[in-house]
Formats: sequence, structure tokens, C-alpha cells
Amino acid sequence: MTSRRILYIEPTRHDPVKQERLATYLRKYAAPGTELSVVGLEQGTAHLEYHAYAAASLPEILCKIQDAEQSGFDAAIIGCFYDPGLREAREVAVRMPVTAPAESALHLAALLGHRFSILVGRRKWIPAMEENVRRYGFADRLASFRPIGMGVLDFRRDPEETGRRLLSAARSAIEEDGAEVIILGCTMQLGFFQQLQESLGVPVIDVAVAALKHAEMLSEVRAWGWTPSKIGGYETPPEHELACWGLRNQAKE
Amino acid sequence: MTSRRILYIEPTRHDPVKQERLATYLRKYAAPGTELSVVGLEQGTAHLEYHAYAAASLPEILCKIQDAEQSGFDAAIIGCFYDPGLREAREVAVRMPVTAPAESALHLAALLGHRFSILVGRRKWIPAMEENVRRYGFADRLASFRPIGMGVLDFRRDPEETGRRLLSAARSAIEEDGAEVIILGCTMQLGFFQQLQESLGVPVIDVAVAALKHAEMLSEVRAWGWTPSKIGGYETPPEHELACWGLRNQAKE
Amino acid sequence: MTSRRILYIEPTRHDPVKQERLATYLRKYAAPGTELSVVGLEQGTAHLEYHAYAAASLPEILCKIQDAEQSGFDAAIIGCFYDPGLREAREVAVRMPVTAPAESALHLAALLGHRFSILVGRRKWIPAMEENVRRYGFADRLASFRPIGMGVLDFRRDPEETGRRLLSAARSAIEEDGAEVIILGCTMQLGFFQQLQESLGVPVIDVAVAALKHAEMLSEVRAWGWTPSKIGGYETPPEHELACWGLRNQAKE
Amino acid sequence: MTSRRILYIEPTRHDPVKQERLATYLRKYAAPGTELSVVGLEQGTAHLEYHAYAAASLPEILCKIQDAEQSGFDAAIIGCFYDPGLREAREVAVRMPVTAPAESALHLAALLGHRFSILVGRRKWIPAMEENVRRYGFADRLASFRPIGMGVLDFRRDPEETGRRLLSAARSAIEEDGAEVIILGCTMQLGFFQQLQESLGVPVIDVAVAALKHAEMLSEVRAWGWTPSKIGGYETPPEHELACWGLRNQAKE
Amino acid sequence: MTSRRILYIEPTRHDPVKQERLATYLRKYAAPGTELSVVGLEQGTAHLEYHAYAAASLPEILCKIQDAEQSGFDAAIIGCFYDPGLREAREVAVRMPVTAPAESALHLAALLGHRFSILVGRRKWIPAMEENVRRYGFADRLASFRPIGMGVLDFRRDPEETGRRLLSAARSAIEEDGAEVIILGCTMQLGFFQQLQESLGVPVIDVAVAALKHAEMLSEVRAWGWTPSKIGGYETPPEHELACWGLRNQAKE
Amino acid sequence: MTSRRILYIEPTRHDPVKQERLATYLRKYAAPGTELSVVGLEQGTAHLEYHAYAAASLPEILCKIQDAEQSGFDAAIIGCFYDPGLREAREVAVRMPVTAPAESALHLAALLGHRFSILVGRRKWIPAMEENVRRYGFADRLASFRPIGMGVLDFRRDPEETGRRLLSAARSAIEEDGAEVIILGCTMQLGFFQQLQESLGVPVIDVAVAALKHAEMLSEVRAWGWTPSKIGGYETPPEHELACWGLRNQAKE
Repeated sequence: MTSRRILYIEPTRHDPVKQERLATYLRKYAAPGTELSVVGLEQGTAHLEYHAYAAASLPEILCKIQDAEQSGFDAAIIGCFYDPGLREAREVAVRMPVTAPAESALHLAALLGHRFSILVGRRKWIPAMEENVRRYGFADRLASFRPIGMGVLDFRRDPEETGRRLLSAARSAIEEDGAEVIILGCTMQLGFFQQLQESLGVPVIDVAVAALKHAEMLSEVRAWGWTPSKIGGYETPPEHELACWGLRNQAKE
Repeated sequence: MTSRRILYIEPTRHDPVKQERLATYLRKYAAPGTELSVVGLEQGTAHLEYHAYAAASLPEILCKIQDAEQSGFDAAIIGCFYDPGLREAREVAVRMPVTAPAESALHLAALLGHRFSILVGRRKWIPAMEENVRRYGFADRLASFRPIGMGVLDFRRDPEETGRRLLSAARSAIEEDGAEVIILGCTMQLGFFQQLQESLGVPVIDVAVAALKHAEMLSEVRAWGWTPSKIGGYETPPEHELACWGLRNQAKE
Repeated sequence: MTSRRILYIEPTRHDPVKQERLATYLRKYAAPGTELSVVGLEQGTAHLEYHAYAAASLPEILCKIQDAEQSGFDAAIIGCFYDPGLREAREVAVRMPVTAPAESALHLAALLGHRFSILVGRRKWIPAMEENVRRYGFADRLASFRPIGMGVLDFRRDPEETGRRLLSAARSAIEEDGAEVIILGCTMQLGFFQQLQESLGVPVIDVAVAALKHAEMLSEVRAWGWTPSKIGGYETPPEHELACWGLRNQAKE
Repeated sequence: MTSRRILYIEPTRHDPVKQERLATYLRKYAAPGTELSVVGLEQGTAHLEYHAYAAASLPEILCKIQDAEQSGFDAAIIGCFYDPGLREAREVAVRMPVTAPAESALHLAALLGHRFSILVGRRKWIPAMEENVRRYGFADRLASFRPIGMGVLDFRRDPEETGRRLLSAARSAIEEDGAEVIILGCTMQLGFFQQLQESLGVPVIDVAVAALKHAEMLSEVRAWGWTPSKIGGYETPPEHELACWGLRNQAKE
Repeated sequence: MTSRRILYIEPTRHDPVKQERLATYLRKYAAPGTELSVVGLEQGTAHLEYHAYAAASLPEILCKIQDAEQSGFDAAIIGCFYDPGLREAREVAVRMPVTAPAESALHLAALLGHRFSILVGRRKWIPAMEENVRRYGFADRLASFRPIGMGVLDFRRDPEETGRRLLSAARSAIEEDGAEVIILGCTMQLGFFQQLQESLGVPVIDVAVAALKHAEMLSEVRAWGWTPSKIGGYETPPEHELACWGLRNQAKE
Repeated sequence: MTSRRILYIEPTRHDPVKQERLATYLRKYAAPGTELSVVGLEQGTAHLEYHAYAAASLPEILCKIQDAEQSGFDAAIIGCFYDPGLREAREVAVRMPVTAPAESALHLAALLGHRFSILVGRRKWIPAMEENVRRYGFADRLASFRPIGMGVLDFRRDPEETGRRLLSAARSAIEEDGAEVIILGCTMQLGFFQQLQESLGVPVIDVAVAALKHAEMLSEVRAWGWTPSKIGGYETPPEHELACWGLRNQAKE
């Protein structure tokens, strides 16, 4: 039977309780044979709403990606809806596939309906996410972004209020913007999708789960050589440069 | 352990040898737990290079989709790179996911590189396929279409010549058009991808396999309600209309 | 004096009263010399709101196209705003031009104003129609789709209510969405355009009439060889294949 | 029988021989009932390859448009493939339709094939024409521009050489760029399309003829109110402003 | 110290008071060393809301551009947000850079935020301006056009009402349309930007000032040869043609 | 007289000789009143061809940006044609403008011609750069990327060979791809633009100089409040978060 080890990197500060909760949650959606590990960062921030925070975390994220490949993980996930470092991770990983929530969720939503809306916390998030929607090819499928006026840290403080706002925003997206599918644009909105889906009657994508399913699929197809092409943008840096400039050593620590 | 039954509809005339060969081939790439059936059409044509042939086959394809769902299949694949009837199939299927090679292959290729080229048999195929590339959101990722000057029926007549032309076209796509990934734009080009991949050093997508992996993934995520949204373009026709106009009866015959 | 015979295929179930009413209506807008015939399908459905219904009708539509060309018609129209089978019809027709309402209406609207809105019956229709708008090149000119919450069969049941809703939707399109031209996105909305136009003061396109004018123009320019190019997507299937697979026989019955 | 008077404005310096030759040529393609007049400009230049020349001619073109409408013309054509002043002409014309060669030819070509190439005289022409292709919505359909290295005035000096170069460029467009339809991107390339078409076996669009057919169609549909919408970009200037600032007087002279 | 002479052409009827007021206003924003002249047209209209008015003014605008270059100006600005004649001006100017408000303001706004809204006087203006936004490459950055229901001549009649409406439209653009930057889409809205900016807390672009800054930058970089490329669309007409057809003489009068 | 201090961050390892050479070079193109400083990174790599290297450098780049603003610099430049960290830099800078070579060069090239080509070292660079071209809005203006088959470190090793290859690639871009302007897609290609420009007769953009001119312009317009909008994507992180997570402390060290 297939067995695959997948590493989910939560690109925020290490927090065993939070990471264990996420692991438990995601395992419910894992395919048979998937062994999922969730890790945080040594030097991460508490959230990634600001792009500078993601930038500060990129070096450690990329080290974790290199470590994961060396340790024999079959795939890795960078768990933030901005998809920070996805391009760079596919560059440093030689054959291990890497996925991220926005790319995975958009791909999946596109198979389930014509237009989707993305529920986000704050307006601040939209420009970078919208550029990703466009880059990934789904601009014509985007019905709207709908901010609910809460920061990431607010989501857990008052889950009921979060749920109410998500439901209200989703309804507006469906009725006013023409959305057929709803995407919860934050990995911290976990656990909401099932109840929303029941209330709304349309698919609601939990983006961390989407990234997991993509990671499983990509870890499977690598068996016959379908891994990121190395002749263009994902060409891996030469080993001697990584070593010489401390980028490999970092990875090994 | 998960078990899923997937129906691969080869939308050409029923041919047990051909379908068995395809089934054997695809099973090598199936996930554990996948039971794959391959069927042809009662009234199909020998190939689908002309759009009118696909149109002539659509009614039977849709019947087979309805039958498959009623018989408990977990997913269905419409096995032609034009993706004929994909929209209609997602409409008549109530909760069973349906995939098709072009959509699946393009989604997968987009995860593996920046730009891809699609090798096709004849120039004739390109306009409809190019519209699909655009509709699916991947126009910016398309390096080129490269026709090899052979019809579908020619592929099997002289596999060596086919292989030579595919290799030559792929090389040109990589060197002149900037392709990082190659897509074999026909389900009849099966078996070529592995050898091409070894010669070229870049991922070469067998589109039937890609559709299979998508079908497996979608059959899995339907467990938690991620099936095509029914409030928009994929709304299913009312049962009484299907019955009244013989579209359901057709399906049952 | 020029004389041209044009066949308008209403791709729904044969209904002599309905077809005669449509013929009478359209003849008011025909150019001198146009002889218009309107036919329905033997095995059509009562409406085409669902894509599967159009798929079920495609084989007969294409037979009628082939018959029409053999019988000496100068042009044919496929009378449904989804433009079902337009690509396939241009493939099987060797030199006879074929038009359809959406393509024709969008081309015409683009000459009359910067942005247009399309009034449709139900939200269900929008995704496929929007893809056509994009395919035909007019995405930048689309102000909005405005559904009026009625199915095709409802239009005739309560024409007054239909008229009221069309007027209200058109006003919203003009005032809120910036539309300069209104397109009635269904061939069953016939007869409404004149009164709407008077109330609104902007051009309101009857899409069946638009298709008729395009058909007349294309039937005229074919005199000097401007017919669909046969070296690419519209290449006609070889006669022996059509015969061999029963696609030509069908056409002759 | 329908009768319509159409004015073709050749926006270059008045030249009775040249204009009569053009009129004779175009009348062969006119519909029954069309009376065609061709006029030049009092103060025009010998060609319009430079945008400044078109700018210098715009005031007189717009006067001629206003005059034509007052004199009862049913439609007017601005005969240059840059479509100079088309927007402005639709603004000053109250109900008389105005067409121009690029818009008309692109619309027509889009009905006849998937991709087209435009043969132009010199590279200089391309940027402005390409912007028009994009503005009109046909960027996805453009296979290529192919310059033949001749200025407008060269076309007539050596028609044989012109014909040879057009044929060669068209062949390259078809074989290398994937064009299914050829557009002769200059109204001065008249007379070449028939022989090219015979050699090439694909439709070759004479853009002046295309503009004529569009003008005929638009002059016909105005009978039921389909004229440029006046609530947006084509809103006509108020009469008192035109009078006050001499723009109406100019028109009357 | 650098010294540069810049000509601002207000493409409306000569009005010394108005032009002096504008010059005084703009000089506050000029870089050290900039000598700014503002001129109107001999035969201009009082405003340019209608495209025909701009067309009527183009010949004189282009004469002024040629004169300016001959007189040693370092750059010229065509002061209307439709950017009338910008392409033509860059054609006739051999090495002197020319700028215009829409191009300059859009470029600048794109550096200051993700999405911008453009406040215009009347709906009439939007189509041509929207085409410019698209042509210049900023369609993805456009949050909205917001008309305030006033013509150009109304702006000065009741500045307080104008200010109120601009503020209200800007607030809606920010809160409902997602604008991060506001562009005042008319050179006649001068003086409003500072107060709006203070009320709104986001950058508000005065488009005449933007064009001035672009003109200064372009006049500086021409020192090392960065002037409009003359091998394509901006190729300058040959001197003998300009002379022969009176286009050079015009310029000198 | 205006005086402005501009910091050019060369995001590679500190190298006083290299940075001084660059400073000397750039000062030739600086406006009067500009004081330019060039700095490298403590922990940078020798080049940034791989995205992981840029990621590794982002934290220090952002610290330098914060330091620069606190130290009173009027603008900062991130000197690499990938524009690494530009979004993040505009986020952490409160009112100090930040520019980068690709954005600046593309904006400038768009003012100088219709289409441009970008000469790069290796094919590897293209995907990320192409995404930037698209994000910045200039996809329609891109004639081609032309790689010269050399890495960044090769440029200086054999400047003559570099010059020859740049000239050859530029000629091909002009003649085959329709480029009217050439962009040297690397800040290490400094010094080549003048000689290329003389040989080619078209503008050749040195991207570091372009970024400098943009920085000067933006530092000037900030005087009247035109700085990045802080209500959307460029919202600055709250001070207490930066402090708490060590991102501000880093900046101060």
C-alpha cells in the first residue's frame, strides 16, 4: 500500500498546541497512507497578514523545505493563503513537490464551478491575493473578494462572530457577485467550511485541505517523473553556491 | 481502505481490444483502491478529430455518465483531449465528479512549470484546443502548439515514426518556444510519455493519466461535499423534463 | 435581383404554430430577396436552458445543416443564444455560411456602443454565455448579465410580466452597470425589443434578427469566396468517413 | 425595393481618377439597391501612413460626415485601415451609421476562421493597427502582422511586385503563423484579393469591400432603431456648441 | 544647474487669464530649473468633452508641437485627460518628448497603490478614457470610473459643489470599489487634490501635475538618448512630405 | 535648491569596489541635488539569479529600507531586475518611496515605443521576470525575452563577449520580434547601453538608471503627499508587532 510522508509548514511561530490541532484536523481529510507532520517556525511571527512578515520567514521556510527533502518527505505544503515562497520552494526542492493553499484551492474551485468568491479577513490582504489569482490563471473565474473585517488573530478569539460574518459574506458573494463556489482565504479559518457548506448549499473550500489533496496527488505522480521542470524558472541552485553562501548550511541546521 | 470505482469513457466506437489495452495501461498509474473500467460507445466513430464526430457522440456520452452515476461509480472520465461534453456531463451528474484530459493535464502542467507546449496530430485540432486552454485559464502559460502532421489513426500505424516526430516536436518546443513541460495532446499518444521524458529531461504529461489522477482526487473530496456547484452553470435538469423528453430513458437503455 | 434562401433552425421540438409565428416575425426584418424558412427538430426538447438538451439536439441540428446545404440553401441559422453547434456546423457545411444569435448580436452591439448588457432568464444561463462573450472577443465590452428570474417557458406565459421585468433589468443595466446597448439574451424574447427601445432610448438587440442580418450578409459575400476557411478548425470531415460512420446517411434521412 | 445611398470617404487628397476607379471597383461588390459615391478630401495628403496626416484630415472628414447625414446618405465609410476618426464620426452623426475598414474586416474575418494575419506595407503601420485589433476585441485571433516592405504609394507603382510580395507574405502567415484567413491591411491593396484567394485557398479580405458590406447592413438595421447609442461615448455634441465654435459652419461649407 | 523649458498646451481656446492661472498653479509643483509656458489654441473650443472637438484641434496641437521643438523647448504637454494627439505628437516630434495627463497619471498611480479610481465629469467621458486605461496597460488596476454629473464648464462655476461631489465620489470609490488611489480625471479639476487628499488620507493625483513631472523626467533622460524610438509607430514623416502637403507650413504659421 | 538623498541597495554581498564603481556610474545620470549612496548586504550572495538567494536576502533588504527611512533618506532603490521585495519594502516604508529596476524600466520603455524586448542572461530568469511584466501591466508591449546564454558573473569576466552577444540579441529582437526599445534586464549590464544605443539607433534602457530617475521623481512628489497609499496592500505593520517579533530590532541593528 502506498505510504507517503507530507510536511505541512505553518509559516508562523512554533506553537505545539496550535500545530497539533491543525494536524488532527487535517488528518481527517488525508488519504489512506498519508502521514502528516505539521511544524511551525523557530523565528516566525504570530500571523502573516503583512508581507514583510512572510519575507522575514522565507529563509527558514526554505531551509525546512530542503530539510524535508533530505529527510525523505514525499511532499511539503507551505500553509499560508499568500503562498509565500512557493516559487522559491519549487526551486530549492530537487524532486519533492511543494504545494500551497491558494494555488491548490483555486485549481480545485475551478473544477467545481464557474465563478468563486474568496472570503478574506481584511482588505489589506486583497491586492497580493488578487495578483496570485491572476498569476495562477483564474482572473476570469473570480467573482469577488469579500473581507469580513477581522484580522487572523481575531478569528479564534470569537469563532461564533467569525462564523456569522463568513456566512453573511458568503451569502452576499453568492447572491450579489454570482459566486458558485466559496473559498475561505485563510488557513486559520479551519473548521468553518463544513457548517458553511451546509447552510449555503454550495462547495466551500478549506484551503489547507485543498493543499493537502494537491500534495498527495503530486507526491503520487512523481513516481513516474512528474516533478517540477528544472530547465526554466524552477532550476535548482548549484550545490556549491548554496554551500559557499551558507544557504545549504542553514538548511542543515 | 478507500475503494473507488472510476469509469473511463473512450468516446469512440466500442473496441474491446483497444479498451482493454487502455485499461491495462492506465491501471499502472492508478492509486491503490481504484477500480478502473474502460468503455467505448455503441455508435461512436473511430476517432474524434472532427468536432461533428464528437457532437454525434455526445448523447451517448451523457447517457453513459448518467448510467455511471446510477450504477454507483465514484467518478467518470471523458477520454478525449477536446474534453467533449465536459460541461454537459457535470450538469447531468448530480454528485459524481467528471474529468477530462485537457482540463486535467493543463492543471497539472501548470503546477510543474511556467510554460508548456502541446503536441498535436494535425493543425486542424488547434483552434478548439486553444480555446479550451484559454477557457481553463492557462493562455499565459501556453508556449506553443506543435502539430506533428499525423492523424489519430496514424499514431498506431507507425509508432516509431510517431515517437520520432513527437521527440522532434518536443525538442523544438523546448528550445525555440520556451516550453518547460510537454503535454501530449491526444489520449491515443499513450505509452510515449515515459521514453520522451527520459530523452528530454522535462515532465511529459500523458493526458489520460492526468485525467485519472484528477478523477481520483475529485472522487475523494466529494466525501466532504466538494462536488460541482449546482446553483449556476452546472444546475442539473429537472427529473420530469429528462423523463418527459426521453433524455432519462435514453440514459437507462 | 438577389434572391437568397435562408434556413432558421429552431433547435427545439417541432411546433408548426410556434415556427410559423417566428417566421412571420422575422420576415418583417428580412432584406428584399430573402426567403426564410423556419424549422424545428423531430426529437428536440421544449427549451434549451440545460446544456444537455442542446447536446441531445446536436446530431439532428448538424443533419439539418448538411441537408440545407445539399438542398441549396444560401445560409443557415442555429436559433438559440447559446449558439449550440456553431463550430460543428461550420465544419460540416462546405461552403454554406452558418450564423447564430449570440455571435451575431455581440458583433452588432459592438458597432453600436461601448458596453452592452445581456438580459437573460435565469442565472443558470450565464456561465456558458459569458464564455461565449469572451471567446468571441467582447469581454471588455460586457457591462453585465442581468437575469430576470424566469425560465424560457415562462416568457410566453405572462408576456406582460416578462416585459416589465425586462424593462426593469434594462434600466438597471443602463444606470448601474454602464450599458449603452441592451441585448435580449434569448431568441424567445422576440417582439419585446421595439417597445423596450422606445422606453429606454438605446438600441435593444433582438438576437434572432441579428442572426438573420449576419446570415444575409454572409450569404452575399460567399459570392466572391468569403466562406469559412477550410485549412484549420473548420476543415470538413472527409466524405468517406461521414458515409462510413453513418453521419452522412443520417444527414440524408 | 430597398435603395440606400452610401458615401465612401477616401481620406486622402481629392483625385477624380483614383476615386472613380475605386467606385467602379466597389460597385461590383455592392448589394442591389446600393448607390455608392466616393469622395476625396480638399486638403488631404497623398497617403495616410503617418498618424499626423490622418490628424490633419480629421476636421474635413468629420465635416463630410455631417454633410453626408444632412444630405440624406444612409451610411458613410471612412476608407483607411487605421479607421481614422471612426469614434468621432459616430459621435457627430446623429443617426447615420459610419463604418471603417479595420473594424469591418476584423469582424468579418472572425466569422470565417479562428486566426487571421494582416498584411501591411511597412512596420511603421503595425503599432496603431495592433491597438485597433485589441480595442475591437480580436487580439486572441491575430496570428500575425506581416509587412511587405512597401509604402502605400509603392503599391500602384509596381502591382506585379506588390502581388508577389503579398502572396509570399500570405503563404508565410498561413504556414508559419497559423493564419486561416488573410486580411489585406490597406484600402489601396484593392484588386489583389481575388487572385490571392485563388492561389491560397483561404479567404482573403479586401477591407474596403468589408466596410461596404458593414455599411449596407448597418444602413438596413437603422430602420428599426439600431443606430449608435447616444447615452455614452457616442453622445452627439449640442448643436449650439457646434455652431458657436464654427464646427457646424465648417460642416455646412 | 539644469534648466529646461516645458510647453504646456491647453488644447482649448486661447484665454490668457485661464492660462496664466494654470501656469501659476503648475509652477508650484515644478522642479528647480523648469521654465513652464502655458498656451491655448487660436481655434480651439471651450472644452473637449466631445471627441470631435479634440479632432478639430489636433492640427493646431501638432503645429504647436512642431513649433515647440523648433523653438528649443525641452518637452511638451498636451493638457487634456483624453490625451488627444499624444501618438501623433510623438510622431512629429523628432527628439522632444511629449507627455499627456492620462498616461502620466496612470503610470504614477500604479506606483502608489494597487487599484485606483478615476473621477470624471460625465458618463460620456468614460468609454474613450477606459480604452486609454486599457491601452496603457492598467486595466487590472482600475477600480472604477465615478462620474460626478458635471460638465467641464460646470467645475469652475460652482467650485464648492464640485469639491463636495468629488469628495463623495472618492469616498464611494475607496469604500465600495476598493480604490487605494484617486485620480482626478480632468485637468480642469486643478486645486482640488490637496484638500481631497487631506480628507481622504490616500494619494489624489492632479493629472496636470503628473504630466509635468513626467515631462521633466523625459526631458532629463533625453540627454543620454532616451527619446521615442523612431523605427516603429513613432517614425517621423519625411520632411519633404510635410512641406509638400502644407503640414510643415502650417506648423510655422 | 532641492536636495535629495537616495539609497541604492545592491542586494548582493557587500563589495566596496563594486559598489563604488556603481555609485560613480550612476552619479553621471543623477539629477542635480541628488546625493546617491550605494550599499551591499552583510549576508548577501554574489548574485541573485536564483529566487532562493533573493529570499535569503529579503530580511536584510527590508531592514535597510527601514533604516534608510529612519536615517532620512528621501528614496530607496532595490537594485535587482527581479525587483525582489518591492512590495514588502513599500509596506514597511511609511512615507519614503522605494523603486526597483524592472518596474521603472518597463514604465519608461512604455513611454518610448510600442514594443520592447528584454535581454537577459539565462533562460532561467524569464519566468519570474515575465510575471513581473504582466503584473506591471506591460504584457501587450513585450516583444520578447532574449537570453544571451551568460550568467550574471560572466558579464564582467568577458565584457567584450557580453557586448557582442547583447548587440546580436538586440538586433534579433528588433528585426525578428518587432522591438522598438531594448531593455537590458540586469543591473550588472551597466555601461553597455550607450554603445548599444549608438549601434542600434533605438533607445536602450539601463535599468539601474531608470530606477534612479523614478526614485528622484517619487522623492519629489512626496512633498505634496504622493506616497504609497496605506489603506490597502501597502498598509504598514503596526509598530508593536514589529517590535515584539524582532522585525524592528533587526532594522535598528
